[in-house]
Amino acid sequence: MRLDFDEIKNEIKRVFMKYGMSEEKAEACARMHTESTYDGIYSHGTGRVARFADYLKKGWVNPDADPTLEKDAGAVRIYDGHMGPGITNALYCVEEAMKLADRYGIGMVGLKNTTHWMRGGSYGLYAAKKGYISIMWTNTESVMPPWGAKECRLGNNPFVMAVPGPEGADPLLLDMAISQYAYGKLAMTRLAGKKLPFPGGFDKDGNLTDDPGAIEASRRILPMGYWKGSSFAFMLDVLGALLSDGIGAADIDHVGKGSCGGASQIMILIDPDKISGKERRDEVIRKAITHIKSAALDGHSAGVFAPGEDFARLRKDHDEHGIFVDDSIWKEILAL
Amino acid sequence: MRLDFDEIKNEIKRVFMKYGMSEEKAEACARMHTESTYDGIYSHGTGRVARFADYLKKGWVNPDADPTLEKDAGAVRIYDGHMGPGITNALYCVEEAMKLADRYGIGMVGLKNTTHWMRGGSYGLYAAKKGYISIMWTNTESVMPPWGAKECRLGNNPFVMAVPGPEGADPLLLDMAISQYAYGKLAMTRLAGKKLPFPGGFDKDGNLTDDPGAIEASRRILPMGYWKGSSFAFMLDVLGALLSDGIGAADIDHVGKGSCGGASQIMILIDPDKISGKERRDEVIRKAITHIKSAALDGHSAGVFAPGEDFARLRKDHDEHGIFVDDSIWKEILAL
Repeated sequence: MRLDFDEIKNEIKRVFMKYGMSEEKAEACARMHTESTYDGIYSHGTGRVARFADYLKKGWVNPDADPTLEKDAGAVRIYDGHMGPGITNALYCVEEAMKLADRYGIGMVGLKNTTHWMRGGSYGLYAAKKGYISIMWTNTESVMPPWGAKECRLGNNPFVMAVPGPEGADPLLLDMAISQYAYGKLAMTRLAGKKLPFPGGFDKDGNLTDDPGAIEASRRILPMGYWKGSSFAFMLDVLGALLSDGIGAADIDHVGKGSCGGASQIMILIDPDKISGKERRDEVIRKAITHIKSAALDGHSAGVFAPGEDFARLRKDHDEHGIFVDDSIWKEILAL
Repeated sequence: MRLDFDEIKNEIKRVFMKYGMSEEKAEACARMHTESTYDGIYSHGTGRVARFADYLKKGWVNPDADPTLEKDAGAVRIYDGHMGPGITNALYCVEEAMKLADRYGIGMVGLKNTTHWMRGGSYGLYAAKKGYISIMWTNTESVMPPWGAKECRLGNNPFVMAVPGPEGADPLLLDMAISQYAYGKLAMTRLAGKKLPFPGGFDKDGNLTDDPGAIEASRRILPMGYWKGSSFAFMLDVLGALLSDGIGAADIDHVGKGSCGGASQIMILIDPDKISGKERRDEVIRKAITHIKSAALDGHSAGVFAPGEDFARLRKDHDEHGIFVDDSIWKEILAL
């Protein structure tokens, strides 16, 4: 079905308040879930409401907690999230990091002891719309085998880079998990009776495969770039812990409070106005986009897109026809 | 053949001085080339001396230039490298970024208008040995097609993350180009009559292939993680330009002063002592390494390694038997 933004947001807000959140926090969280839905990231939008409500019900997320400042080291600040809602914790810390960037040009906040921040790209977009460049990531529980091994010991550690768009254009947004495919993509592809476009993991016999079911069974999802992504995921895990005085996958695995319960997030924010003028920056970005789009296309290609540009079409569709929500998901939300 | 560190370093230094570098700068550059050789990164060590000498000869690198401060924005500083030697420019800026990290907890230097910094990991190791955590990258000329295209419009934009090792251990070091394989690896594999371990690009007909010669011919090397690496490389290019008030691949392509001539490098340095104690950090790192190594190995695997750990064996060999230098490369250096 198609619904409008506030219709979705208010229903999600109702659910979150029912499970113990204050109106203010429920509003912020519901807005983020709705924005993810608007961008087509259903897995962290409408598709994630029931699970988050369940976490609240189980006491895995503390609906009342706010981050507290643990360490003030100039342009670096460490916050304890006290297992509060991942979204409000992360938003608070992005705001703090912006203030640091205002003052010092760059600011870093390490947020420990927090919960799932949902869509990482949300915070990159949020910062970009306010004029900041950002580099952010989260660590997670173990969901991916390190290179050379069969058992999961690495997080998929979503990594975000975002840049304010040129005048009138959307922000540039890189928002990538380090696994080549998400488990959601594997399930969807399997249910559609299809193969993955490229191998996404190993089967139980250790053969690289594009069969999503075989990878779901072995749990041997592939890091992007094989050994490269494995090392990258490891560094994001360790740096997540070190830069927040928090914990990594080895410990998150034992917290026992759901996906990302106890995880750390790192937000590095930069004020680009301290470096150059907006006009000059817009020119750099436009030139880079023109450059990649000037390449001759591969025969199978739908075009070359700048990171984040691919949301534009769906946003337009959602603006014109309402935001798509899966019927059964909506029924589930209404029933909560 | 096997040579000792100073023997290699002094010969390289002689060459660089012959081509116009001051003794001080030649010493710093020769040391870095030798350290890369010591770590087995021959492509940016002994294997790169003749090419760098050629750049000096052609005037593509200005042997006398030092970085000048263009903008001081607190914890962010912008330097102009004036096309000076990539190594001395980058080292200078890492030192400046360390001073910012000392003062503010985090510091970022954007270095524009510089030249090839050789092995990116050098600067991560350098900072880690002095106790700093670092995130660094460079942009480059176009060498890789963006996802969906056949022509090169993206740099391979090496990305570095480094962390001081636990007491008595080597630093953790991620030093990755965004292309799945370097052109050097393709050539070596082709000359050995072998196939790549995993597909590394597309052939001229657009088929994914593990045949290195077919990829060299098409120049369609693969970004790590397909579309993911393509977007990542784009962001590193744009951010390289924006955060240094410099230029990206679209313009670097037209500088006409060799690989990376006119490129930008970004150095983000963090003082971890401002966040937590050394003992706590060592515990986090040791636990993360123990965690990944506790996974059951794939049948073909030589083991699971922490990023940077794989250098230890070669370093030991080089300590015991002298540093390996290819006979013909050494002859070439002696003849310069």
